[in-house]
Amino acid sequence: MRSDHLTQLRKGALELAVLALLDRAPSYGFEIVDGLAGLPGLEATTGTIYPLLTRLKNSRLVDTTWRESPKGPPRKYYTLSVAGRDELAGQTAAWRQVVTAMDALLTEETR
Amino acid sequence: MRSDHLTQLRKGALELAVLALLDRAPSYGFEIVDGLAGLPGLEATTGTIYPLLTRLKNSRLVDTTWRESPKGPPRKYYTLSVAGRDELAGQTAAWRQVVTAMDALLTEETR
Repeated sequence: MRSDHLTQLRKGALELAVLALLDRAPSYGFEIVDGLAGLPGLEATTGTIYPLLTRLKNSRLVDTTWRESPKGPPRKYYTLSVAGRDELAGQTAAWRQVVTAMDALLTEETR
Repeated sequence: MRSDHLTQLRKGALELAVLALLDRAPSYGFEIVDGLAGLPGLEATTGTIYPLLTRLKNSRLVDTTWRESPKGPPRKYYTLSVAGRDELAGQTAAWRQVVTAMDALLTEETR
């Protein structure tokens, strides 16, 4: 499969995935990468997730706070802002709409 | 919702949608736009679909043939190539994987 398509599909899905993860609990960068690692199809490296978190921060969808770590230096935690929660709700609705439409198309396909 | 995210998500999904439509039957540009118009979340203009068809053609995933039209000039029909069918199978599997992963994430979310 051509990788450019796969990249685009995953990029679009990853932002929603990260917002959903942060809505569960505040989290730090590597913890997010680790959470996604358990979800085949949404795995991502720090090289993808860190810039994504920076974009979310610049768009004010997340806030950051530093917290002490039991081992090692303090960690930068990301939390959803009020705007981030709205964004999550909007993206979830849009995602479900696309999934429903695609389901109709791919199911007809296999008849 | 920020439009850049939505654009990216749909761009990724649209290529798969077009491949699935062409697997059903050979089709010309405007007919594809018309077919997608009935699928909320996957609607696209000719300004999006024509360049997408050109990219698919350049990647040899589709072939083109001219056919007489009952009214007006001949139409350029797009058909899936053998490589296009493989691509459709691969993208469908990748799509379903992402949907399954996202479902797990969004369902946990609403608990």
